[in-house]
Amino acid sequence: MNHHPPLSGFFITLEGGEGAGKSTQIQLLASALRDAGHEVVVTREPGGSSGAEAIRGLILTGGFGFSAVTEALLFSAARLDHLEKTIRPALQRGAVVLCDRFFDSTRAYQGASGAADPAILSALETIAVGATRPDLTLIFDLPPADGLRRAAARRGHGQADRFESEALGFHEKLRAGFLAIAQHEPERCRVIDAARPVEAIAGDVKAIVLAKLGARRA
Amino acid sequence: MNHHPPLSGFFITLEGGEGAGKSTQIQLLASALRDAGHEVVVTREPGGSSGAEAIRGLILTGGFGFSAVTEALLFSAARLDHLEKTIRPALQRGAVVLCDRFFDSTRAYQGASGAADPAILSALETIAVGATRPDLTLIFDLPPADGLRRAAARRGHGQADRFESEALGFHEKLRAGFLAIAQHEPERCRVIDAARPVEAIAGDVKAIVLAKLGARRA
Repeated sequence: MNHHPPLSGFFITLEGGEGAGKSTQIQLLASALRDAGHEVVVTREPGGSSGAEAIRGLILTGGFGFSAVTEALLFSAARLDHLEKTIRPALQRGAVVLCDRFFDSTRAYQGASGAADPAILSALETIAVGATRPDLTLIFDLPPADGLRRAAARRGHGQADRFESEALGFHEKLRAGFLAIAQHEPERCRVIDAARPVEAIAGDVKAIVLAKLGARRA
Repeated sequence: MNHHPPLSGFFITLEGGEGAGKSTQIQLLASALRDAGHEVVVTREPGGSSGAEAIRGLILTGGFGFSAVTEALLFSAARLDHLEKTIRPALQRGAVVLCDRFFDSTRAYQGASGAADPAILSALETIAVGATRPDLTLIFDLPPADGLRRAAARRGHGQADRFESEALGFHEKLRAGFLAIAQHEPERCRVIDAARPVEAIAGDVKAIVLAKLGARRA
């Protein structure tokens, strides 16, 4: 239990639209960090603790027709439980935490859908997250048309259907939302060009993360 | 369905510590108002809609060990769902809504327990309740020692046990919390002396409510 390197914990979040390859990259990054001697905790939102998973189930399968603000309150409760039960204890014992989606997804998705008042979302972010902000956020960026083409190809037909075409506007807004966050918080965020081969992306990610960890240890 | 009187809805909340007789009085008041020709909706917190009841179940029986702030977020989600599904539709069609406990209970109980930051609770109240504030709040007031003696008598022994003695300090703070709310918002709140016989209290309550409803209609 005492083999983790003598640095305080480091909190990394991975963000971006659909089909950007986050799940593959998070596993490659976890392996690289473990090889370098770090304790790594891989987690995800929504969920990441048993209480948060139960809240998620209530939202996704309960059929209660919750409004956008009720959902935002429930997701905030789930996020706080996840932080208290999983993320903060790991950071306290010095682990590197890799979290697939965090508050930037709420900002970008809600911003793109326009369903909830941004002032309410901002107040809830302060309540749920407090001082535990990510040390580094990797934003996986891909033109939405490429992402939707990849998704269509995986399902076995090459052309975007009507639903995918309608969705394009939403995904454009989502992408713009993530890029605006990166521009607004350049110290925390790094944009990753996710249109390249898996190995090239993994190399970039590893280099960025190890440099940040090294800078912190120094 | 069109028999309700030609006034917009009226939102009444009933508040107070344990053993103050709220449940008896809410039924007597509902009957009196129905006799006077009003549509009456009786509801309660926590709960009051199927989504809110499900959230309540998660808190009370889930065993997830939620923190005070996580619980406050979940209760706020339940309150908003209750407002959207039950209270606002009833008020829109002109009903009198009688709600057993509402945000004053959160203020008083959390204030007495000191478990959550008052600034967070205030921000959540604004998010969950918005503009739908009670038109009238009846605060049933009783010296806590009397309430605990009543509870002990109901259980068949006359003396307060160790648990009840320890609880006394908490209930004194709770009472002070409710009285402070009444003092701070005298237009909305009326304090009811709940140490008197049921009939005397019911007479007072009916007179206060009918006067308020009459003033509004005029």
